[in-house]
Amino acid sequence: MNQIKPSKLELQKTIQHKIDFKTKPLGALGRLEEIALQICLIQNTEKPELINPHILIFASDHGIAMEGVSAYPQEVTWQMVYNFLSDGAAINVFAKQNNIVVKIVDAGVNKEFDNLPNLISAKIDYGTKSFLYGKAMTKTQLDECRKQAKHIVNIVIETTKSNIIGFGEMGIGNTSSASLIMNCLTAINLKDCIGRGSGINNEQLNKKYEILNMALVNNILDIASPYDVLQTFGGFEIAMITEAMLEAYEKNCIIMVDGFIATSAFLVAYKINSSIIQNAIFCHQSDEKGHKLLLDYLQVKPLVNLNMRLGEGTGCAIAFPIIQSAVKFLNEMASFKTAGISNKL
Amino acid sequence: MNQIKPSKLELQKTIQHKIDFKTKPLGALGRLEEIALQICLIQNTEKPELINPHILIFASDHGIAMEGVSAYPQEVTWQMVYNFLSDGAAINVFAKQNNIVVKIVDAGVNKEFDNLPNLISAKIDYGTKSFLYGKAMTKTQLDECRKQAKHIVNIVIETTKSNIIGFGEMGIGNTSSASLIMNCLTAINLKDCIGRGSGINNEQLNKKYEILNMALVNNILDIASPYDVLQTFGGFEIAMITEAMLEAYEKNCIIMVDGFIATSAFLVAYKINSSIIQNAIFCHQSDEKGHKLLLDYLQVKPLVNLNMRLGEGTGCAIAFPIIQSAVKFLNEMASFKTAGISNKL
Repeated sequence: MNQIKPSKLELQKTIQHKIDFKTKPLGALGRLEEIALQICLIQNTEKPELINPHILIFASDHGIAMEGVSAYPQEVTWQMVYNFLSDGAAINVFAKQNNIVVKIVDAGVNKEFDNLPNLISAKIDYGTKSFLYGKAMTKTQLDECRKQAKHIVNIVIETTKSNIIGFGEMGIGNTSSASLIMNCLTAINLKDCIGRGSGINNEQLNKKYEILNMALVNNILDIASPYDVLQTFGGFEIAMITEAMLEAYEKNCIIMVDGFIATSAFLVAYKINSSIIQNAIFCHQSDEKGHKLLLDYLQVKPLVNLNMRLGEGTGCAIAFPIIQSAVKFLNEMASFKTAGISNKL
Repeated sequence: MNQIKPSKLELQKTIQHKIDFKTKPLGALGRLEEIALQICLIQNTEKPELINPHILIFASDHGIAMEGVSAYPQEVTWQMVYNFLSDGAAINVFAKQNNIVVKIVDAGVNKEFDNLPNLISAKIDYGTKSFLYGKAMTKTQLDECRKQAKHIVNIVIETTKSNIIGFGEMGIGNTSSASLIMNCLTAINLKDCIGRGSGINNEQLNKKYEILNMALVNNILDIASPYDVLQTFGGFEIAMITEAMLEAYEKNCIIMVDGFIATSAFLVAYKINSSIIQNAIFCHQSDEKGHKLLLDYLQVKPLVNLNMRLGEGTGCAIAFPIIQSAVKFLNEMASFKTAGISNKL
């Protein structure tokens, strides 16, 4: 999957040697060793560093929410935006704990926020259209999503020098978008892509399947490319996350991938430029049904599995200390030589 | 497993209500919610706190190491003690990262350390005897291990008010002790209890099995009680960890359980007082072969599985931020009511 240039191969050997001669049995730090190596290769250095970690939360509303696919009313999207801005949400707590900066982006929430100081306004519209009988957004709107997302990522990188960014989302109805994106781009059975989202019951789950299946049938002719899929089924927040990830990759950041919806955005990015996977760390496995299959499809293993299914970037925030540990053991642990310790018999 | 008193049931209901009305879908924080509830029940409060987290590393040598069961020479035990004291080991790096205090205890290392300021001296002897033809330690030595461990835990709690303690170990040969303890107390096949430890090859693994099987045959008449097992096959560090865990439980601390060897010590403690499991958080699943079976036997699920197999308490240190997140979401997140957010449809 990773195409490694000759100079990278040299660096890889050097780093592996450095890892192997730390004061521990060979391989004893398991996945931390893999993450350390990955970050060194991304940063092209033996001394990696994590600078100003950020989580960008993109919030938007979805026309499909009106069809009754979610356990919560649409107004929860804007209410949660206020909650993020008041530091009351789970992501605020975990990000503060782990010294991660959180920024909230209004990608298209169905509410006028009039100039809230800590909210980045990138509103495309007051939510997407329902994709039940046609595309969720216009080509112009998709292009605008891409432009805004690219701009936001560049501002963050330029102003803070951040080199590790996680992407979170909020949008009532957005597991429906993610399920259809997954189905279109992986050809995994639609039923296996659909889960309970924020907690619907069996009857609602059947209804969600019926609605999404109908949406698929009604739009089947319009989904030739990854961008078509994004335009047809994406939310504004998902489209922005896709482009934001692509831009973060172009700027050589580490990309922290969160749960089901963020991974569906990553999937689109991966279909556009598969090299992006070199910079991605899959932070957690969500309890949302499709996520495990999606991670398997990408042939990646998440860092933790804590049965979480909240989005907002919470999986990134929880996994971040583990990523930090990977960088720190490489930079700070003694080697057999410096510690004067006998190596293997 | 947990015997809950009526007043605890009331508290449990109150806490579950508090968890359920945080601004997130029901159950969306998964295992963090379980850990939050567990800690509240331990501390008998709705507002739990983690005070002065500690990891106590007990180091000791093992007569059995002379039989060639390990990939490393015995001198690595004392060399690693110096490494711990110089902040060069993995546990130092991770503990520092996560603000955990590390204390090193010489439980019986085969080296004279003469009064190192940061080393707690509790030396029972210069290593145990080989248990190939008889008990690893005398009854007097076991009693001394218990007395010392109890004392050390009490000093830590009294001087720092710590209410969460992890237990790490260092001792070349100690997976052999752990495997035999596991086999004796769980009746799981000896072969399934034995792994590669610090990284032995297939030939060495076969030899390890032959030696441990012979040790088992030669000592089979002497292992009626958990303490007999500890005296026969335990290292001094394992015996001390067992008693230290029991004492931490008596003092109502949260007990962070590390990898295979620490869990074998926990197993002995559990066989002595099964209530201890209420206070235990199983931090990680080691790659050492027997650990998964041992966790399954205890019917517990570790917080992370990162293919680590290092000991030293590193699994505790890596999992600690997740435990912190569990406490923090409960204490700091807004509720639907305080945030003015609509609950389920």
